[in-house]
Amino acid sequence: MNELQLTLNTIWVIFAASLVFFMQAGFAMLESGMVRSKNSVNVIMKNYIDMAFCALAFWLVGYGLMFGSNPTGFFGTDHFILHDADSWSYTVLLFQIMFAATAATIVSGALAERIRYWPYLISAIFISSFIYPLFGSWVWGGSSDDNTMGWLKTLGFIDFSGSSVVHAIGGWCALAGVIVLKPRLGRFDKIRRSTTKTAARTEEKKNKQHSIPGHNLPMVALGGFILWFGWFGFNGGSLLEANASIGKIILNTHLSGAAGVFGAMLLLLIMRKPLLLTRGINGGLGGLVAICAGCAFMDPPFAVLTGFIAGMITVFGSFLLERLRLDDAVDAVSVHAFAGTWGVLAVGLFHTEQLFNGKQLAIQALGAGIACLWAFSMAWLMFTLLSFWIRLRVKTSDERKGLDYTEHFEVAYPEFQQNLLHSGKR
Amino acid sequence: MNELQLTLNTIWVIFAASLVFFMQAGFAMLESGMVRSKNSVNVIMKNYIDMAFCALAFWLVGYGLMFGSNPTGFFGTDHFILHDADSWSYTVLLFQIMFAATAATIVSGALAERIRYWPYLISAIFISSFIYPLFGSWVWGGSSDDNTMGWLKTLGFIDFSGSSVVHAIGGWCALAGVIVLKPRLGRFDKIRRSTTKTAARTEEKKNKQHSIPGHNLPMVALGGFILWFGWFGFNGGSLLEANASIGKIILNTHLSGAAGVFGAMLLLLIMRKPLLLTRGINGGLGGLVAICAGCAFMDPPFAVLTGFIAGMITVFGSFLLERLRLDDAVDAVSVHAFAGTWGVLAVGLFHTEQLFNGKQLAIQALGAGIACLWAFSMAWLMFTLLSFWIRLRVKTSDERKGLDYTEHFEVAYPEFQQNLLHSGKR
Amino acid sequence: MNELQLTLNTIWVIFAASLVFFMQAGFAMLESGMVRSKNSVNVIMKNYIDMAFCALAFWLVGYGLMFGSNPTGFFGTDHFILHDADSWSYTVLLFQIMFAATAATIVSGALAERIRYWPYLISAIFISSFIYPLFGSWVWGGSSDDNTMGWLKTLGFIDFSGSSVVHAIGGWCALAGVIVLKPRLGRFDKIRRSTTKTAARTEEKKNKQHSIPGHNLPMVALGGFILWFGWFGFNGGSLLEANASIGKIILNTHLSGAAGVFGAMLLLLIMRKPLLLTRGINGGLGGLVAICAGCAFMDPPFAVLTGFIAGMITVFGSFLLERLRLDDAVDAVSVHAFAGTWGVLAVGLFHTEQLFNGKQLAIQALGAGIACLWAFSMAWLMFTLLSFWIRLRVKTSDERKGLDYTEHFEVAYPEFQQNLLHSGKR
Repeated sequence: MNELQLTLNTIWVIFAASLVFFMQAGFAMLESGMVRSKNSVNVIMKNYIDMAFCALAFWLVGYGLMFGSNPTGFFGTDHFILHDADSWSYTVLLFQIMFAATAATIVSGALAERIRYWPYLISAIFISSFIYPLFGSWVWGGSSDDNTMGWLKTLGFIDFSGSSVVHAIGGWCALAGVIVLKPRLGRFDKIRRSTTKTAARTEEKKNKQHSIPGHNLPMVALGGFILWFGWFGFNGGSLLEANASIGKIILNTHLSGAAGVFGAMLLLLIMRKPLLLTRGINGGLGGLVAICAGCAFMDPPFAVLTGFIAGMITVFGSFLLERLRLDDAVDAVSVHAFAGTWGVLAVGLFHTEQLFNGKQLAIQALGAGIACLWAFSMAWLMFTLLSFWIRLRVKTSDERKGLDYTEHFEVAYPEFQQNLLHSGKR
Repeated sequence: MNELQLTLNTIWVIFAASLVFFMQAGFAMLESGMVRSKNSVNVIMKNYIDMAFCALAFWLVGYGLMFGSNPTGFFGTDHFILHDADSWSYTVLLFQIMFAATAATIVSGALAERIRYWPYLISAIFISSFIYPLFGSWVWGGSSDDNTMGWLKTLGFIDFSGSSVVHAIGGWCALAGVIVLKPRLGRFDKIRRSTTKTAARTEEKKNKQHSIPGHNLPMVALGGFILWFGWFGFNGGSLLEANASIGKIILNTHLSGAAGVFGAMLLLLIMRKPLLLTRGINGGLGGLVAICAGCAFMDPPFAVLTGFIAGMITVFGSFLLERLRLDDAVDAVSVHAFAGTWGVLAVGLFHTEQLFNGKQLAIQALGAGIACLWAFSMAWLMFTLLSFWIRLRVKTSDERKGLDYTEHFEVAYPEFQQNLLHSGKR
Repeated sequence: MNELQLTLNTIWVIFAASLVFFMQAGFAMLESGMVRSKNSVNVIMKNYIDMAFCALAFWLVGYGLMFGSNPTGFFGTDHFILHDADSWSYTVLLFQIMFAATAATIVSGALAERIRYWPYLISAIFISSFIYPLFGSWVWGGSSDDNTMGWLKTLGFIDFSGSSVVHAIGGWCALAGVIVLKPRLGRFDKIRRSTTKTAARTEEKKNKQHSIPGHNLPMVALGGFILWFGWFGFNGGSLLEANASIGKIILNTHLSGAAGVFGAMLLLLIMRKPLLLTRGINGGLGGLVAICAGCAFMDPPFAVLTGFIAGMITVFGSFLLERLRLDDAVDAVSVHAFAGTWGVLAVGLFHTEQLFNGKQLAIQALGAGIACLWAFSMAWLMFTLLSFWIRLRVKTSDERKGLDYTEHFEVAYPEFQQNLLHSGKR
């Protein structure tokens, strides 16, 4: 390769990797702001430490599993603990480390306010060094040079920058955790089946859900902006090369995010629901998630359409989960799993070179289904085993006091949470 | 064009566009922190949603009006809903979308705490898809290749990266809104003309203004830092090309901002006024606004001088508006309109190749005047029509309760604003 | 130089400079969040204004002292008030201005909550235009072309991006300030030597330290993330050239930071101390500080080791300072001086081309010692003179009220600090 081109690729990928790194700050702010202040340190500590630990774990194990030579098509077999390598390999590893941390972090928000700290860290490391890289090796692994590509890649499955590989995988893991962990205290009233018709009507009112408002919405918004900013690196860097086509990729990314906000807002207006800040932000994130798969292959109008539908899916998915009495503290399942799955399908429909191609759509549906099956079942197994092995959920009294105090012995805003510190009960 | 140079231009402009995007986060934090907590969600929602909606509107309409071929010199006529285009066009469109969102967002802060949400969104879309791109087409539109340049450009008007096109336009729109909307409740005492001399003295004391402190100054500072950071993309990307001259552009930008802080602080010291954080930050922003026009054409010492004077203007302008009983919640008029106008004049004075050239100065003054006339009159018309058509200002009772609750049905810090939620009055 | 390469270098260094600039926001958030809310505006104002003033001071004086031609090896003698220069010089100056601001800012946090504003600003300007550039000229100054290199550079001292030049210098200045200023009120109980054995035991319990919790931990975490993000520019830009080797530099940086978090956490676990958020973040920063010196010269496994040890040192140093009754409000001494010194030694041990080379290690130790001697003694002198000349420490009553109110006449969160504003005492 031309040396100038190599330098260009290097600085572009490093720019992109830096932005993807910064998404961790976005996740931390978004998720921490969406929970109650008594759990906000806990959420941030999960983000911060899993970012660090996953970097080490992915360097040690994950990268090799995902991008090592892949003779079977099911997992990579070398490049573990990469060292003594050429500069370009280091650059790629750096970018992939940042990606892996993202997949793990998606889970943290969904399980907020009730998961114990150490089991969570174990799960994050397991996701980023096993669940995520294995699926990744099927879609992105291996190389066509020596006929050792991942099996989904061989089938022709398209996922440019991870609507499925990163987002849906993270989202489905989150769903498994949400199911195993059960809802937060007070999130849903207990269901009481009643025997008489009058009682049924009374009970129906009681069987409702109580949304738990986040403690710091400006922080949520800051997180949303940082994530959007980081997405330019997320999608732009996935080419692992610098060339002029990146302009279209980033434009599609931005337009899809914008259309996601629009779609979410429109659906809320139609449903006559309040236009909450968190829903607006999640709509935009849904648009960004959905366009990952196809941002390099679509014309801008289709990117807008993809994002618009994704925004609606995000809102709809959130109400659906609520109806199913599943308690996802930050709507991560809706944003990452649902919108991610839609994104994978969208590239089957809207690919510039094969608009509305049924065969491609079928392959995309297959890949999206495999992602769901793989991530959900592995994560369900992992969380179930963890809950038997070392208890996954905090004690009820600790959940009431808040995880900051009980797990970390500190609180986020000691001067503004006087009642937390000085009341008898805490 | 050489392919490597094209790649270089692409990644540079995308880097710059990403930073300009991130300025939205800066505006959101700065403006939200400068208002009372009961309106902070509202301010952020305005920023977030207008960023998204303006992106779509500018793609649909604004870009064509501003950068389409411009046979009359007064507006562009093609490139609407850009699609099926080459990569470089997409890159430029991306950068310009980010710019347009900036112009609209400037207004949001000035009108904070009293404007209704939907009328605001309509005004933001109108600004970014009509007021801003039309003036833009006069200064930056068309091309010299086919003799179809904007009419101010033809005259020789210089505005490198938008002291007038973006900032003064945004600032004058904000001034119009401030005038039409009237001050916030309690910002100024009612003026009572008294008949006797003694009474006059008593009344004088009562006719004073009450500054309304922002609820979260660290957030304001964060916004200020993010904006400054974003400015490197704002000024650096305006070249729409990567070359070595960007070093000087960014150095001038930084030095001018620094001198702006210094100028503001010095004037406050001289006036024996407290050195408020918000004034220091606005001084820096004033320096950054003023250097936009000339950052590519000045020697560093003149950039420092430009910023120094801009910082003073920002402080002085703020006191002037207060004296005129105009209530700009975040001093946007002072920072963007006044410092922006100074910046346009400064490049007439300090251009390296034509220091203190009277003719250029006259052209600059003409352009600055046109910007003021155009933006102020169009925005005044728009806000006046909106106020008759769908009511612009919230009800007095809603203004008391705060717009977060009355317009968005949520509050920013539910745990720390107990009095807002639980008191009878709210 | 090839023109494309020059362009590449320019945009890479500007990207890096922008990130280093953004570190100021990180410092502001981190430090402000670690103090009590009544001093948070003060901390931010120190960061914001010293960033601006140091930029001007470094342009006027510091850059020339540090990078001017250096015939004696002890200081530079030209390039003051750089103007009318070529683009590349401006680019380098920009990057170096950002670096200089970092060195000064390190001090601000350590001295928080008790230093007067103007003396602090004087000290910051003195550090960034004298203490820092002089030491810098010894390590990085001059050029081998005309045999006029800094004397430590001539000896073969290695410090790639400033473990000593920036971080240790800043950290030792902070230590001097901490000693001269004395601890915050209430940080340590007075030591009372008792005469009887029983009393001794009672007193021992009283002679303890009281940690003063920061008022906003999510803001601390945001600062930590921003700093980490900025570090990619800090280490990546120090090459002052764009080429493929940057991949390894940034990978090492990231892995060392991650290992720093791990090391800090592990030591805390072993010591059975709570895993506080601030300690986790400081551990990561320690890893990043330590890898500055050697990120370009180490293989990744050694970068991990460097960071791991740095994280432990950061935690250990913090306990050591506490034991010595030195009150560093944000652990800047531990993070920057101790970990920075370790980083300088580490490159003597782990340099790829000369693993465990005793001679290099001796040179590194010499350089680290000189940094400590120079910075500590100059800063001690400066702070001592300042304390006689214009009083360094605020009045006790002001310290109780908080510096925001007494030095800046405003408070950070006027709605959430009611007791500060409305109580009789404040």
